[in-house]
Amino acid sequence: MLVVMKHNASQEHVDAVVATIEDMGYSARPIPGGQRTAVGLIGNDGGVDSARIQGLEGVLEVIPVTQPYKQVSREWKEEDTLVTLPNGTVVGGPEVVVMAGPCAVESEGQIIDIAHRLREVGATILRGGAFKPRTSPYSFHGLGLQGLELLAKAREATGMMVVTEAIDPQGVDLVVEYADIVQIGARNMQNYPLLRRAGQAGKPVLLKRGMAATIDELLLAAEYLLAEGNNNVILCERGVRSFDNHTRNLLDLTAIPVVKSLSHLPIIADPSHGTGIRAKVIPMARAAVAAGADGLMVEVHPDPPRARSDGAQSLYPEQFEVLMDQIRIIARSIGRDLVAPLPSAVAL
Amino acid sequence: MLVVMKHNASQEHVDAVVATIEDMGYSARPIPGGQRTAVGLIGNDGGVDSARIQGLEGVLEVIPVTQPYKQVSREWKEEDTLVTLPNGTVVGGPEVVVMAGPCAVESEGQIIDIAHRLREVGATILRGGAFKPRTSPYSFHGLGLQGLELLAKAREATGMMVVTEAIDPQGVDLVVEYADIVQIGARNMQNYPLLRRAGQAGKPVLLKRGMAATIDELLLAAEYLLAEGNNNVILCERGVRSFDNHTRNLLDLTAIPVVKSLSHLPIIADPSHGTGIRAKVIPMARAAVAAGADGLMVEVHPDPPRARSDGAQSLYPEQFEVLMDQIRIIARSIGRDLVAPLPSAVAL
Amino acid sequence: MLVVMKHNASQEHVDAVVATIEDMGYSARPIPGGQRTAVGLIGNDGGVDSARIQGLEGVLEVIPVTQPYKQVSREWKEEDTLVTLPNGTVVGGPEVVVMAGPCAVESEGQIIDIAHRLREVGATILRGGAFKPRTSPYSFHGLGLQGLELLAKAREATGMMVVTEAIDPQGVDLVVEYADIVQIGARNMQNYPLLRRAGQAGKPVLLKRGMAATIDELLLAAEYLLAEGNNNVILCERGVRSFDNHTRNLLDLTAIPVVKSLSHLPIIADPSHGTGIRAKVIPMARAAVAAGADGLMVEVHPDPPRARSDGAQSLYPEQFEVLMDQIRIIARSIGRDLVAPLPSAVAL
Amino acid sequence: MLVVMKHNASQEHVDAVVATIEDMGYSARPIPGGQRTAVGLIGNDGGVDSARIQGLEGVLEVIPVTQPYKQVSREWKEEDTLVTLPNGTVVGGPEVVVMAGPCAVESEGQIIDIAHRLREVGATILRGGAFKPRTSPYSFHGLGLQGLELLAKAREATGMMVVTEAIDPQGVDLVVEYADIVQIGARNMQNYPLLRRAGQAGKPVLLKRGMAATIDELLLAAEYLLAEGNNNVILCERGVRSFDNHTRNLLDLTAIPVVKSLSHLPIIADPSHGTGIRAKVIPMARAAVAAGADGLMVEVHPDPPRARSDGAQSLYPEQFEVLMDQIRIIARSIGRDLVAPLPSAVAL
Repeated sequence: MLVVMKHNASQEHVDAVVATIEDMGYSARPIPGGQRTAVGLIGNDGGVDSARIQGLEGVLEVIPVTQPYKQVSREWKEEDTLVTLPNGTVVGGPEVVVMAGPCAVESEGQIIDIAHRLREVGATILRGGAFKPRTSPYSFHGLGLQGLELLAKAREATGMMVVTEAIDPQGVDLVVEYADIVQIGARNMQNYPLLRRAGQAGKPVLLKRGMAATIDELLLAAEYLLAEGNNNVILCERGVRSFDNHTRNLLDLTAIPVVKSLSHLPIIADPSHGTGIRAKVIPMARAAVAAGADGLMVEVHPDPPRARSDGAQSLYPEQFEVLMDQIRIIARSIGRDLVAPLPSAVAL
Repeated sequence: MLVVMKHNASQEHVDAVVATIEDMGYSARPIPGGQRTAVGLIGNDGGVDSARIQGLEGVLEVIPVTQPYKQVSREWKEEDTLVTLPNGTVVGGPEVVVMAGPCAVESEGQIIDIAHRLREVGATILRGGAFKPRTSPYSFHGLGLQGLELLAKAREATGMMVVTEAIDPQGVDLVVEYADIVQIGARNMQNYPLLRRAGQAGKPVLLKRGMAATIDELLLAAEYLLAEGNNNVILCERGVRSFDNHTRNLLDLTAIPVVKSLSHLPIIADPSHGTGIRAKVIPMARAAVAAGADGLMVEVHPDPPRARSDGAQSLYPEQFEVLMDQIRIIARSIGRDLVAPLPSAVAL
Repeated sequence: MLVVMKHNASQEHVDAVVATIEDMGYSARPIPGGQRTAVGLIGNDGGVDSARIQGLEGVLEVIPVTQPYKQVSREWKEEDTLVTLPNGTVVGGPEVVVMAGPCAVESEGQIIDIAHRLREVGATILRGGAFKPRTSPYSFHGLGLQGLELLAKAREATGMMVVTEAIDPQGVDLVVEYADIVQIGARNMQNYPLLRRAGQAGKPVLLKRGMAATIDELLLAAEYLLAEGNNNVILCERGVRSFDNHTRNLLDLTAIPVVKSLSHLPIIADPSHGTGIRAKVIPMARAAVAAGADGLMVEVHPDPPRARSDGAQSLYPEQFEVLMDQIRIIARSIGRDLVAPLPSAVAL
Repeated sequence: MLVVMKHNASQEHVDAVVATIEDMGYSARPIPGGQRTAVGLIGNDGGVDSARIQGLEGVLEVIPVTQPYKQVSREWKEEDTLVTLPNGTVVGGPEVVVMAGPCAVESEGQIIDIAHRLREVGATILRGGAFKPRTSPYSFHGLGLQGLELLAKAREATGMMVVTEAIDPQGVDLVVEYADIVQIGARNMQNYPLLRRAGQAGKPVLLKRGMAATIDELLLAAEYLLAEGNNNVILCERGVRSFDNHTRNLLDLTAIPVVKSLSHLPIIADPSHGTGIRAKVIPMARAAVAAGADGLMVEVHPDPPRARSDGAQSLYPEQFEVLMDQIRIIARSIGRDLVAPLPSAVAL
C-alpha cells in the first residue's frame, strides 16, 4: 500500500502516517520525491483497511498496491483451474463448454424435450431455474423443489450435467442434492452467507458477476468460496449496468481476458441475460468465444413466445444449432474446440 | 403496456400481437398512427411479463406504461407514510430524523459512550453494525450477537432507538429481538428471501438502495416488504456506482424528490457510505436535508483513526455537533425542523 | 409520442394536454385505459420537443415512440449502405475491412515502414493521427500539416487509403485535401459545427461513438452528416465509460448488432481505444468480427515502447499478423471474408 | 508515478523498467517490498505518458501519483480564485451568485421581460442561449447573432451581466464582443481548439463538466484555459450520465466539495440541466448551495410551456422567487450569503 502525501504535508504529518502504520503492525518506508513524499506500507497481506490512514492529515490518497484477493489470483496459482464434472465435461481446459436450457423449468415435458434437443447438437450441461429471483414479487418464481426433481430426471434421461440457482443458504443444500453445479446469481454475488454455504457445498459453483460489480469485487466474491475450501469455481460474465437502454445490460466481454490474466479460474459468458434480446444473443455468443471464454450459458426454449420467463431472450432450438456450428469454427480459429458431444449410449 | 410496431410491420404481425395479448388474458387495442401502428394492452395489473411479446416479429419496442410496483406507489396511497418508533421519533413527517453511530459496534465502552454524545446533540436513533457484510472474506465481520446485546444496552442507557443490519433470514429474527429497525443493506436489496423475512418481522425496515439499482428497482424491492404486510418501510439513498473514483460512490440526491413523487414512503440519505470520505460527509448531509430528505444516517466514531471499519468516513463527535446546528437551519428554511432531542429523563 | 397521464389526472388535465398538442400543430388521440389515460400525438415527424408537454399538470411521463433520427434509420432505407473507396475497398459489404496504423504519425520512416508491413498482411486502410486531441494541454498533439503530408506519401507508396482525424472545421478542409476518410473522434461526436463541415466534405466520414453516447445519440450525430448530404458515413464503436478501471473503456460490442438493426450504415470497432491495453486488443478484435462488425480500426506501431502516444495499446506488427489470420477464419464462420489484400503492383 | 511489478517479475523486467524510465529522462527508484517490487519515477512534472511503461513485461500496473493538472490545482495556488465582473458580482468569494434566464433567447420581449423579473429578486447574471447545440439536427438552434444583440440590450436595461455559450472558435470572438462570460457547454468540454480560443478571449469562462467527464478530466480541460493565460475560470457541475432514466442526468453534487479541495477555481451547479424536470430543480438548487456551491445557473422562462427549448425544466418566475428566499437562508447557515441585488439605479 502506498500513502501519497499532499505537496505541502509537514514532517509531522509524515511521522503520524508512519506511526499509524506501525501501530497497525506493519512497517513503513517513507519515499521522498521531487514534488511530494509517499510512504510505503510493507508486510501487507491484502487485508489492510486503508480507512484509518485515509483520514489522517496531510494524506492526499491511499493507493492499494497489493491485490485484495489471494487464492483466486494467478500469482497464488499459476496454472489454470480445471473443473471436471462427472460426465467428463471439463470447464477451463482447451475445450469450450456449452450450458443451455430454458430460463425456468416449467414442466416435465418441456425440460426433457429441450434437454434431448440440446444434447443432440452438443451441449453437455443443462441449465434451468427452479428458484427464480424476480424483480417483482408478483412474477413467476419457479417450481422450487419440483423443478429440481425434473432437472434430475432430465439428467438421467440425457447424461447432461445440471446447473441451477440457489437463492438462500437452505436452497444450497437442496440444489446440491439434485444438481451438479450450484449457481449463484448476479443479485446474490455479494450475499456472503450464501457464498459461505456454497463454499462448503462440495460441488462446483458457478458465480455470476453482479450487475455493477467491478472485476476485483467479482474475484473477492469468489475468494469467499475458495476461503471455505471450494476450488471448483466457474465465473460468469452476464452483463453490467450501463446507460443505454437498447439492451437489458451491457455485456462486458473484455472482462474475459482481464479475468484470465488476473485469475486461474475459468470464466464463461451468458449472452442471454447479457443482452436480453434474442437477435443479439447469437452474435454475442460468438463474440464471447472469440474473446476467449471457456464456455457459454445460453437460454433455449422449445417455444419462446410461451415461456413463463425471459422468453424474449430465449433462442429457438434451430437457432441454437446454427450457433453451435459457428462457435465450433471460432473456437478452432484460436486453437481450441468445443467439448465433444455426449455419446448416445449415455442417454440409455 | 404499449407495443410499438415497426414501420413496415404487416397486418399479420399486428394480428399476432393482438392474439398473443389475448392469449395472455388481457385486451388489445390497436392504435394506427401516421408512421406506424401501436397496440395498447389493457387490463394490465403491473405484473405482465413483456418478454413474450418483445420477441414477436414486427415488434419494435414494448413500453411499460403501468408502473411495475403497486402498494409502494403514491397512486395507491396518496398520503405520506409515517413510521412511528417507541421513543416518539416519527420518520416521514415534517421533522427530519437523525440516525447516527459507529460503522460497527466494537465494545461496550465505545457504543455507550458515543450514544450518549450523539443523544446530547439531538440524534434519536443509534446505528451500529453487529453483522457486517464485507467485500473481502478476510475483513472484520462484526461482533454478531454480542454486538446486538451492546446495542440494546445503549438503548437502555440513552432512550435512543436502535437500527442495525441483518444479512440473512435467521439474522432478521435476532435483529428483531434486540433492535427497533431492521436494516437491509445495499448488497442485499435484491436478496428476496431476506426481504420476505423482513416483511414478516413486525418491526420497521430500513431498505438501502443497491449500488446500481434504478429507482424502480428500489421501489420493487420495497414492494416485497409491503406485499408481506409490512408498511413501515424507510428507504435510504446511499450512493450509486459511477465512473469517478474521487469518492466511494456517487450520492444521488435527486433520488429523494423523485422517490417522494412516486411513493408515499419516507426516504433518508446516508452521506457516509455515499461519499466514503469524512470531509465530504458534512456538505452532502446538508445537501440531503436541503433536497428534502426525511432523515440522515451518519457514521460518527469517538476515535475515527482507530475504528475497525470505515474510519475514513466517520465524523468526529465535534463535527457531528456542528452538522446538527447547520441542518436545523436548513430544515427550517423549507418549513421543516429537526426531531426534538430526547428528554434527559429518558436516559436515567 | 405517447403522453401517459397520472392515475388521478382530471379531465381538465387531459384536455390541456390535447390543447397543447394541437397548439403545436399535431393531432391528439386520448386512449383511456383501465388504470389511466394516455394521449397519443399523431403526425410526429421525429422532431417534436416533448419538454412543453412534460411540464403540464397531470402528466406522468412522455414516451417517444417515433425514433428521433430519420435518414440514418433502416426504416428510411432498408438496404445496407456501402462506402466504396478509390482503392476498391468497400465498407459495409460482405467483406470485413481493416484500418491499421500508429496512433500518431511521428516521422516519415515510421509511417512508410509500418504502412508497408500492414499492407503486406492485408490491411487496406492506413490510420495515423496528425491532429491529436489530448486530455492534457502538455501532451504531444501531433505533427499537424506535416503529418498529413506524410500520410499522403504513405498512400502513394502502398496504395492504402488514409483515414485521419479532424478536430475543427478548418481541419476538415485540410484533411479532405490529403486523406480519403475524415475521422471525427469520440470527444467531438457532438461538436455540431465540426459535424456540419464534415457533412459537406465530399469524402467519407468515420464517426466515433462518444464516451458516454447512447446509440440513439450516435445515430443522431450521424444524422447531422446525412442532413448535409453526405451518405458515406461509417460508425465506430470504441468503448464507453464505465466503473471498472482494469481497462481504459468498456468496449460495447453489442452496439454492433444493435446499430445494424436500427440503421443501414456500416459500423466498425476500435479495440485499441476500447481496451487501452495491448494484450486485450487481440481477443476483442476477434470478438468484434464475431459480433458482426464491418471492420476494425487497430493501432499497430513498429516499436510500441517508443511510441509518442498510446504505446501501451499498440500491437507489435507480428501480433497484427496473427490477428489477421484469426479474424479471416472468424469472418468465414459467419459467411463473410476479409477484404482482399491490395495487389503488389499498386505499391510500385 | 509508481510502477508496480508483478509478483513473479524477474530482475531483468525491473531493470528494463528502470532503463525505460531513464531513457525518458527521469530517475527511477526501485522499492523492493514483501510481495513485489515497485519502481518510483522521480522528477515527473505531470506530463509523463505512462503508456510506454505500461506495455513492458512484468509490469502489473502504473499508478500516477502526481496529479496530471498543474495551474488549476490548489497545490499550485492555495487561495481561492475570485472572478470579478464589471457590475461588481464576485464569483468564488463568500457570496453565492445566481445566473438565471431562459434556455434560449427567443425575442426581445421575452429576454428583457424576464431579465427585469430576475433582477428584481436578486439574480445579477443573465443566462440565455444564442447558439444552441442540439442533439437533433432538426431542432431549434438559437437566434445566433441576433440573440447576442438582444442579450446585450437586456444587460443595458438591467445592469445584469450576460453569460452565453460559444460552440466554435469563431463564436468565441462574437460572444466576447457581446457578453461578459463565455460559456463552454458540456458537449464541448474536450473541444480543445474551442478551449484554446476561449483561453485567449480576455473574458471569464464558464466551463461545464462533460456528460461523462471525471473530475480530473474537468480540471484538465480547465488547465487548457489557464495554460493560455486565462485565470478567470468558473467550473460548473451539470449532471453526469447514469443508468436511471427518471431524470435527464445525475447531478453529482459531491463534485462540489471534491473540486474545492483539489482546485482554487470557483464551481457552481446547474440543477436545470442536471435534472431536466422543473419539480426537481428547486430541491437540487437548494442542495447545491448546501453542498457549498459558489453559485447556481438556473433556467427561468416567463411562460415555460411555450418555451422553444427545455421548457420542461424551466422554472416559472414565481418559483424562482421562492427559491431565492430559501437559498438565502441556506447560504447563511454555512456562513455565506447571496450576492447583494443590483441597485435600482443601475437599470436606469
